[in-house]
Amino acid sequence: MSQVTCDLTVSLDGFVAGPDQSMEQPLGAGGETLHCWQFQERDTNAAEVAGILEAGAYIMGRNMFAGPDEGVWPADWRGWWGEEPPYHAPVFVLTSHAHEPLVMEGGTTFHFVNDPIESVLARAREAAGGKNVAIAGGASTARQFLAAGLIDELRLHVAPVILGGGERLLDGVGELKLEPLDVRGTRLVSHLRYKVG
Amino acid sequence: MSQVTCDLTVSLDGFVAGPDQSMEQPLGAGGETLHCWQFQERDTNAAEVAGILEAGAYIMGRNMFAGPDEGVWPADWRGWWGEEPPYHAPVFVLTSHAHEPLVMEGGTTFHFVNDPIESVLARAREAAGGKNVAIAGGASTARQFLAAGLIDELRLHVAPVILGGGERLLDGVGELKLEPLDVRGTRLVSHLRYKVG
Repeated sequence: MSQVTCDLTVSLDGFVAGPDQSMEQPLGAGGETLHCWQFQERDTNAAEVAGILEAGAYIMGRNMFAGPDEGVWPADWRGWWGEEPPYHAPVFVLTSHAHEPLVMEGGTTFHFVNDPIESVLARAREAAGGKNVAIAGGASTARQFLAAGLIDELRLHVAPVILGGGERLLDGVGELKLEPLDVRGTRLVSHLRYKVG
Repeated sequence: MSQVTCDLTVSLDGFVAGPDQSMEQPLGAGGETLHCWQFQERDTNAAEVAGILEAGAYIMGRNMFAGPDEGVWPADWRGWWGEEPPYHAPVFVLTSHAHEPLVMEGGTTFHFVNDPIESVLARAREAAGGKNVAIAGGASTARQFLAAGLIDELRLHVAPVILGGGERLLDGVGELKLEPLDVRGTRLVSHLRYKVG
């Protein structure tokens, strides 16, 4: 059966984004440095990048689609990734803001859904056509799915960075049964893969 | 030149001890589970255990020697480790409580010092006779040495455990320049080794 995966990059002190997140600085102060491994070391981390992009459908929180500042995003807003987002698959955005699906280039379609996470997951599973479903973040969405026992594999990419503040991934997630599957590192990141539950 | 090392076991959510630390429960609620790797997987983690015990001198906070509840420990208190502690070397305990050195079996002597950390480190270096000096914890002592730029190598042993509360290692430590040196994992722990500074 297909798996529900969750890839998140965190600082060594456990933050997925730095303090003072805004439209101008969606990852907060210092948050950009978390993701250097994906850009500066794309070849050495090819397997992990492929792992992020192998899913057949994605689920994300509304801040992953639009800025954290507004309840409703501008009418012409089409996400953070330009006209051809890297997902190449259906993406379900959890939001109370009703919106027609946005069909992007390269196979990505954003669906805006306001349903219980279990229902959204069922719909994403169907859309994934036997491939994995990925919980694409942010932290609070990942926590919700973790706490509900809906994630099979948690993949943490730990950047050698101290952010000192911001949004923590694992606060309030409750008890989790975690089993390390694999660990591997490069100069800019340590990859920790866990089976959950 | 000899190195200043710091080995600490942390939960995946960044705690070195769980909530509600006391004399009866020095590692807090759930804190014992952090250290399963040292006991249940001693052979597979032999290199990391040896790394902890290779230092020529140790520095620790007072709670690593006596319970966190009291300012002054009982007169007959001789530490948490019985008559032959695992250090087999001089151990400098940071405390304002003046006390004669305690000579234990097997080469461990506890020295009780109330000096600036730089002076204690100089004394420990001399005592180490060319070997490494290890900052043995707890978290606040490690943070002090990290923040002062006095640690060369940070070795985190990440247990696949969520404690949900307790004492965090890296809160308020400030910016650190970290370079991953090595990463390796087993069923009960992921070892992350960083060069600092």
